[in-house]
Order: sequence, then structure tokens, then C-alpha cells
Amino acid sequence: MADLSSINCLGIIAGHGDLPRDIIQACQRQNIPYYIMAYEGQTDPKFVQGLLHDWVGLGQAGKTIKHFKTNKVDHIVMAGYFNRPAWSELKPDFKGVALMAKLVGKPMGDDGLFRVIVDFFESEGLIVISPEDLLGPKALVNLGNLTKAQPDEQALEDIKRGLNVAKALGAQDVGQSVVVQQGLVLGVEAIEGSDELIRRTASLKQEGPGGVFVKVIKPNQETRVDRAVIGPRTVEYAAQAGLRGIAAEADHVILLNKDETIALADSKGLFITGVCHD
Amino acid sequence: MADLSSINCLGIIAGHGDLPRDIIQACQRQNIPYYIMAYEGQTDPKFVQGLLHDWVGLGQAGKTIKHFKTNKVDHIVMAGYFNRPAWSELKPDFKGVALMAKLVGKPMGDDGLFRVIVDFFESEGLIVISPEDLLGPKALVNLGNLTKAQPDEQALEDIKRGLNVAKALGAQDVGQSVVVQQGLVLGVEAIEGSDELIRRTASLKQEGPGGVFVKVIKPNQETRVDRAVIGPRTVEYAAQAGLRGIAAEADHVILLNKDETIALADSKGLFITGVCHD
Repeated sequence: MADLSSINCLGIIAGHGDLPRDIIQACQRQNIPYYIMAYEGQTDPKFVQGLLHDWVGLGQAGKTIKHFKTNKVDHIVMAGYFNRPAWSELKPDFKGVALMAKLVGKPMGDDGLFRVIVDFFESEGLIVISPEDLLGPKALVNLGNLTKAQPDEQALEDIKRGLNVAKALGAQDVGQSVVVQQGLVLGVEAIEGSDELIRRTASLKQEGPGGVFVKVIKPNQETRVDRAVIGPRTVEYAAQAGLRGIAAEADHVILLNKDETIALADSKGLFITGVCHD
Repeated sequence: MADLSSINCLGIIAGHGDLPRDIIQACQRQNIPYYIMAYEGQTDPKFVQGLLHDWVGLGQAGKTIKHFKTNKVDHIVMAGYFNRPAWSELKPDFKGVALMAKLVGKPMGDDGLFRVIVDFFESEGLIVISPEDLLGPKALVNLGNLTKAQPDEQALEDIKRGLNVAKALGAQDVGQSVVVQQGLVLGVEAIEGSDELIRRTASLKQEGPGGVFVKVIKPNQETRVDRAVIGPRTVEYAAQAGLRGIAAEADHVILLNKDETIALADSKGLFITGVCHD
């Protein structure tokens, strides 16, 4: 666990999704100064409005470091996910080319890729911290049921099947999540991401009790920079797809906006449950 | 290997896809009398036109057996895939209810499900044979490259990664195929089927050299009734999705209309290659 009181300024590498917003709220609550690195074609422009930030191309590693130094950044956190970039977004500079050379052949989503990025920042004297260092351990999904609705026997079996499949996939460094209905694996995540997985499995839904969405972390996942999260959007998508609930690996998956997310699930009659894979 | 000369009449359980047509052509070539069991909502009505057949609901196991006995069927072959049925298509009769009771909780695509179905037919005195008993061993994909185009070094790496992921998935009794591009797993098959997997990964395509489609059999697959196939349609979809080629597990995956399929791949500049998973 990082010592937050020693942070002079936190550099936030902001990708897609709800996590960057939660990180900023956590900084504000804890009076941690922050500066946002926004990436062209990735970070939502609306999100950074009114906040201290600069825009760079994904390949501009030298420019990124320069901005961090100008803003007295000493710690950084990587928040949100990045879509695989088009070449036009990369705009590599000198350090960017050197970094890219180390990343060649490493697929996006590969743990090796994230390790190389962490090593790069650390070699520049920056300390890479994990989102839950800021959000606190309360941000993680707890073991047990979190909502009024609970999984029934069929849902529990679907969760068990989902955990086995997701862990087998994770061991191959593919996805982190699956949708299972009545023992049937409706879909498996690869690079399309969890939201898109849920969306596309809506059309594969079978008659009878709805399915469950199961999310885990990969074995050996570099959790500082590649964090499994669920949040309000997961609940929205799951409800739209007719799923009955969400199971997430306890003590590993981040639950964004915990109270809001649980209230939303309750209002839609979905369960959220923290589970273990044995 | 079944003794084809002892067949009085072959009952063909006809699902979707190109396999039923190939089976009938094989029967015609070898002068094997045949009778088609067509399933409502599954078998293509155009396909059975002018051929000896009857229509039943998927749950009408008793009616199916009665039709087979009326037509002096003594051997059967299951050809093509079945979509998970709507309840309205099942129309279970007395034997259908008994069979369904044994299938409850077994997901479609589960090897256990196919074993129960084989056991049912065998308990009725029918001999279940495998598609390649009729098509001959030449119908299987051979080891090595079959087309003018060949996989380059990147494609070979993608194939290797695809084999590892597909086998890990198969061990969980999920899908049989994956699409990999430059080390990145674009998509993984669950119940949507190979064609739909290729179709949807078209939109996930990355810049640079195109991906490969990799198809294997599951460990412990009941190959008599759940056969992995590739054919002209696989080539068409792969070409449309900008893939560079198809790799299939040698001596296990059926290659439909071998000459036609290879000629089609050659005309589109795609490779088809038979590979082993070690």
C-alpha cells in the first residue's frame, strides 16, 4: 500500500470508462493534488474540462514524462482502459519509439505489455500506484451477496461454470469475463471488452431464467495497471440484456461507486455477489 | 469404421450447415439408401425438397423412432448443427419427455448431451455412425498446407496462440474456434458458432497483416455427433472479414467439398493449413 501523504502530485493516466472519474473524486476527498494526462482518441474530452490536464498522443512517451516533470508529478496511476490505437494516434517521439520497440509483438491485454509500461515509468523515477491505493480496500467487491436479490440454485451453478471458464481463459491471457445462462456459456470476452460482451450476448439469450455475468482477474494480472472493474454501467448493460445478476471475484474486482451501483442493481432487481474461485 | 455395405437404410438427422448435403452426396456416390429426419425450425426446407423425408419437432423422440422403423432405417448419422430450440419447437411426445428428463441441465454443446442422445438411439437398436465413415478419411483436413497461399511467420505465431486458447476453451467444453491477429485474440467462440464469430470479429480487426481463424476439436469430443467442420462458407466469411487464412486441426476437422473449398481459398488468396496441437 502506497503512502498517500508522500504524494506531491499524482499523475492520472486517463483511459476510457468510469475509473478515472472515481480516482479524481478520491483525490478530491483526500486532498491529493493531481494532474491528468489525456490521450488523443482515448480520453473523453468532456471528462477533463475544467481540470488540470494536457493532451498527448499515445506514443509520446517523452512528452508525457516532460509534462509530468513540469507539473511536479512524482506518483502516477493508470486508470481506465485503452482501445488499441490507430497508428495516427501514436505520434511517437524519441522515447516513444524506444518504448514501442519493447512493446512490439505484445498484444494489448497482455500482462507483459503492462509490465513494460510500469518499468518505463519507474525508470523515469515515477512511482506507479494502484487504483485501490487511492480508492481504499472498500472499493473492492466483498465476499458474499451485496444486493436484495440473491442468486438462486441455477444462478449459483452458472456462476461456478463461469468462474471455471473465465479462469481458464485468463490463464491464456485472453479475457476476464463470461456470460452463462442455464449452464450454457453464451459468450466469452476477448478484446471487445465486458460491456460489448454483455451487449452481444443479449441476442443469444435463451428462454427461461436469465443468465449471469461473471468477472474475475487473470492469474498473474498486473493489477496496478490492468484492473478488473464493475460499476453502474455494468448493471445498466446487464439489465438491458436480461441478465439476473453479476458475480465478481471478491477482494480483486473493483466496484465503482459502490452505493450507487448497489442501489441501481436493487432498483432493477439484479444481484451483485462477491465470489471465490477455488 | 462402420461396414457401409451392411446398411439397409441410413437415417440422416439433418441440422444446419453444409454437412447434411455432403452426407447425401456421399450416400448417392456409394449407393446407400437414405431417409432424412427433418426438424422444424432447424432443417432448411429447401434442402429436403424432392428427397425422402418427414418433419418432426425436436422433442418428438417417439415419432422419430417410428419414422425410422417405418422406413427400415438401421443406421443413423447426425449431420449439421442445431440451434438451441424454442420450447414451441420441441413438441415432446412420450419418449421425448423421457429423453428430455435425461438432458435437463446439460447445456447444448455439452459432450454429455450428445452421449445421452447416442445412448438413446442405440437403446432403440439403431447404430450411430460418424460422418467420416461416409465421407471417408479423405474428408478430414490433412497435416500441412493445402493452398497456394501459406502462413508467414506472424500467421504461424497466431496459429500457435489460437491452438492454445482453443484447446483451453475446449477443455472447458465451450467453443472450438478463435480468431487471432498479431498475437491478439480478437474473439472466442461460445454458442454463436464459427460463422458468427468470424463475422463479428471483422469489426475488431486491427491495422496491419490480417488474422487467422483456428478451429480444433474439443478434448473428449463425441465426434460421431458433434463434428468440427470447415467448408466453402468458412472461406467466404474469412475472406469477408479480411482474415489471411484458416488453420484446422489435422486428422480431426472435416473439410467439406475439399476441392471446391481449396479452389475458393486459392481464388481469394487465403491459406488453409492442417496443424497439430502438441
